[in-house]
Amino acid sequence: MAGDASATPPTAEMASANLTSPPERRRREFISSIIGRGTAADDLVGRRVRVGGWVKTGREQGKGAFAFLELNDGSCLANLQVIVDSSVYPLDQLVHTGTSVLVEGELKKPPEGVKQRVELRVDRVLEVGSADPSTYPLPKTRLTLEFLRDYVHLRPRTNTISAIARIRDELAYATHTFFRENGFRYVHTPIITTSDCEGAGEMFQVTTLFSDAEKLDKELQNNPPPSESEIEAAKLLVKEKGDDVAHLKSLKASEGEISASVLKLTKAKESLSKLEERFNLKPGIPQKDGKVDYSRDFFGRQAFLTVSGQLQVETHACALGNVYTFGPTFRAEHSHTSRHLAEFWMIEPEIAFGDLEDDMYYAEEYVKFLCRWLLEHCLEDMEFMVKNYDKSAIDRLKLVSSEPFKRISYTEAVELLCAVTDKKFENKVEWGVDLASEHERYLTEVIFKRPVIVYNYPKEIKAFYMRLNDDQKTVAAMDVLVPKVGELIGGSQREERYDALVERITDAGLPLEPYDWYLELRKFGTVKHSGFGLGFERMILFATGLDNIRDVIPFPRYPGRADL
Amino acid sequence: MAGDASATPPTAEMASANLTSPPERRRREFISSIIGRGTAADDLVGRRVRVGGWVKTGREQGKGAFAFLELNDGSCLANLQVIVDSSVYPLDQLVHTGTSVLVEGELKKPPEGVKQRVELRVDRVLEVGSADPSTYPLPKTRLTLEFLRDYVHLRPRTNTISAIARIRDELAYATHTFFRENGFRYVHTPIITTSDCEGAGEMFQVTTLFSDAEKLDKELQNNPPPSESEIEAAKLLVKEKGDDVAHLKSLKASEGEISASVLKLTKAKESLSKLEERFNLKPGIPQKDGKVDYSRDFFGRQAFLTVSGQLQVETHACALGNVYTFGPTFRAEHSHTSRHLAEFWMIEPEIAFGDLEDDMYYAEEYVKFLCRWLLEHCLEDMEFMVKNYDKSAIDRLKLVSSEPFKRISYTEAVELLCAVTDKKFENKVEWGVDLASEHERYLTEVIFKRPVIVYNYPKEIKAFYMRLNDDQKTVAAMDVLVPKVGELIGGSQREERYDALVERITDAGLPLEPYDWYLELRKFGTVKHSGFGLGFERMILFATGLDNIRDVIPFPRYPGRADL
Repeated sequence: MAGDASATPPTAEMASANLTSPPERRRREFISSIIGRGTAADDLVGRRVRVGGWVKTGREQGKGAFAFLELNDGSCLANLQVIVDSSVYPLDQLVHTGTSVLVEGELKKPPEGVKQRVELRVDRVLEVGSADPSTYPLPKTRLTLEFLRDYVHLRPRTNTISAIARIRDELAYATHTFFRENGFRYVHTPIITTSDCEGAGEMFQVTTLFSDAEKLDKELQNNPPPSESEIEAAKLLVKEKGDDVAHLKSLKASEGEISASVLKLTKAKESLSKLEERFNLKPGIPQKDGKVDYSRDFFGRQAFLTVSGQLQVETHACALGNVYTFGPTFRAEHSHTSRHLAEFWMIEPEIAFGDLEDDMYYAEEYVKFLCRWLLEHCLEDMEFMVKNYDKSAIDRLKLVSSEPFKRISYTEAVELLCAVTDKKFENKVEWGVDLASEHERYLTEVIFKRPVIVYNYPKEIKAFYMRLNDDQKTVAAMDVLVPKVGELIGGSQREERYDALVERITDAGLPLEPYDWYLELRKFGTVKHSGFGLGFERMILFATGLDNIRDVIPFPRYPGRADL
Repeated sequence: MAGDASATPPTAEMASANLTSPPERRRREFISSIIGRGTAADDLVGRRVRVGGWVKTGREQGKGAFAFLELNDGSCLANLQVIVDSSVYPLDQLVHTGTSVLVEGELKKPPEGVKQRVELRVDRVLEVGSADPSTYPLPKTRLTLEFLRDYVHLRPRTNTISAIARIRDELAYATHTFFRENGFRYVHTPIITTSDCEGAGEMFQVTTLFSDAEKLDKELQNNPPPSESEIEAAKLLVKEKGDDVAHLKSLKASEGEISASVLKLTKAKESLSKLEERFNLKPGIPQKDGKVDYSRDFFGRQAFLTVSGQLQVETHACALGNVYTFGPTFRAEHSHTSRHLAEFWMIEPEIAFGDLEDDMYYAEEYVKFLCRWLLEHCLEDMEFMVKNYDKSAIDRLKLVSSEPFKRISYTEAVELLCAVTDKKFENKVEWGVDLASEHERYLTEVIFKRPVIVYNYPKEIKAFYMRLNDDQKTVAAMDVLVPKVGELIGGSQREERYDALVERITDAGLPLEPYDWYLELRKFGTVKHSGFGLGFERMILFATGLDNIRDVIPFPRYPGRADL
């Protein structure tokens, strides 16, 4: 049975009732710290350690005299070889894939010819959590990534998904470190927003109207609203009480009598108004003038999940200087491709007093920093990716971290692509039309064979907040294109001139009022500023060489699917 | 007019059209790096710098011969004293509060008796963004925090809000650093979820049903559904074509004739089915059996904003080992207090193979680490808080970072509180009832005068996932109480025993099916594990001594309010 942690009696220090720390309470050590690259084998041999993890593979040997377990604890890709004698624990309870164990023992030098630098000879099995091989969904055999998407709660136990999780963690920390080292402050932009960044994107709505309606329905069932005749009766009572007051006044009755009568009238009126209020309660979603009445929603207006924190983070760039946001963003697109998620993470720095060149500078430095970081901190996991998914993954990181990015204008890019004769593109290339993914990849993979920054795009194909160039035709936008994924970063210098911004918003057919606050940043102490956005999952696809974005986020959300 | 960045002609290197980096492109320096504590004044004097920022106060001196500007760029609390001669730039365009400037000059030693260690003598004014004093909403005078809440886009320009922003940034980086140093991996748990962590909390719903309904309404208006007679006509056509086929078959017509006839029948059927589909389209929210039909929503079921990432992060603790999540969480509570937000950030670590004691150990170490970090990295901003908001703020950080946390059981806590005679509590203390904030604060502020961890709470008042102790009455839960805010952290050892967890879920009146995946973590290789949650904004309240949680998050969301 599962959960048989009591198979061995708990030792004194493991008993949760005993909450005073014993003098020699031993914590488990990470397998990464035992077999990580940094540790010399000679320092390890003879050390006593406690480790916990999950059995990747196990087998009984020597006619059941002992068992070899390949133990993984998620701290690194490599397993620790663990040897347990049958005198220590019933071996058949340990050897099945997926079984968890917490064990103690001494590190030994393995026999000559064995690839492991060190192995653990166990003398205490402290805890065991079984995994019935007949029902455990992740057997030893190789499983497809597609299959694993149905097991998001268990898939981090596989080599691929745990390697991605570590790469993801490293890229997140590298991000914070890069921006901190460059004087950027981290700002939490809102997740629930009443602004729409580009006046376009498909947004998720955030609401309590359904649950409020449900509550009201229940309430009305438990406590039905008054009938019309009850209302009529209450109205009649108000009239009577009013008449009483008038009558007493006409009789010049005593003040005491009159005020007692007025009190009764007031109560009757209150009672009527309460009844009328309940009488007017309508089940279902509140409506006004034939439309949903959002003034009754939680925030008193329509609210959405953010599609970008850029506009909001600009408020802090125009106060704190360089800032960045790193948070979840959302698109309610019914898109089933391997490149789109409904929920994904984005990094958006904003550079105060920065122009397009500063923007390109930081974008290049940031991507290079991430690539170097993975080479320095994640080589084992990257080697796994090279071996199993993408032979060129490490070479790509090296290329991007060392080669200066090529910078060309959009106009130059279009000219280059129009001159291409060795390839037929599916999409036409023509000045004024956005580059398609095939064009972007051709520029970076074939023409320049390194990352390319394309800048100064036609204003018609870019967002209203991008700064209009002096040619009046292009805006100071830039995209960073990299091999394997194409566009990795999109950014721009922002329009900091009040009048120019008003014109751009109006030209885009957007109303000005929702952007009042955004315009005020330009009205009061405006500064040049620029920024960009990097899709975090896209960066992981670029780094690992994986193809499907659903495999590089722990809990993928897409149309029809939001497990857990 | 605002946005007059062209007041001085842009220098060659500032022109955005020129995108090749000039050899000596100069970037602005942060004021913090010029007047920060680490820099010796002697090293500064004579250095040429470019700085950009916003004028806090400005005044013309020497009968208009020069101006003093107190310039702040958000990199630190302190302003740089800047001196501009009237020959360099029209002074009246520089001196108004809120004006932005980008200037260059030489750092000089100020005259004797001036408190600044260094001042900037400007010889080039590169850019100016005006701020009309008659309309600028943030004049020099001291503004209340409540007033500033109506200006979330401008308030980071004030001393208080910018100090909080820096403290917030430091605490975020300290969080990532602490967990990284302790071998925890960062995991992004989902924001949109189909699980409800405690089967209780008020949740926001995430939906596209309203926008889908709107689109459908428009579509039906532009392209009205077929009438009943059109349907009848289409049905008739199908019948006719069917008869034709039957007729031809009975005549034993040629295969060619029959199949041509069958083709016509198929087309008629298709046409009918399309018409019927459109005929059945109903405007408004889709319904089924009198209820909202969530199978038509984006994720094919009801989806919500997460109230906690704990249950989901457990999947990764049971695979990767120690992990944590740091992300936004949501509560749709109609709560207008100074302690509640509809959107807030939470840190939730989860310790694999960890029991309640490990949980308390990491909680204490983490809080101490944060306090030490602020003392080491944020002293200037903390001193500002002490001076303006809370005299004891720094002392509190020192106390918490140095004193061991007192640990007492819930039962002991109740006994202690029942014995209190010098204070009358508003809420009754009694075994089996949760401690109120007044009790928590009394324990930490009055009885122990240091942080207190209360553990082993009655199972009835705690969540189903907390591990049942051997006494069968309490669960292995713990709360960390600190002076000023009371409960800062709540955590527990998780129930890792399959059967015990099934019983707890059932006892809580919850259905088992939504927790299938959670139960599977206990079915396959279960391990002891524990974790806790720290409300990030509550930590900032604790650190700064501020009273209202709406002032410590950049974009506060609460009932009726979600600006930007």
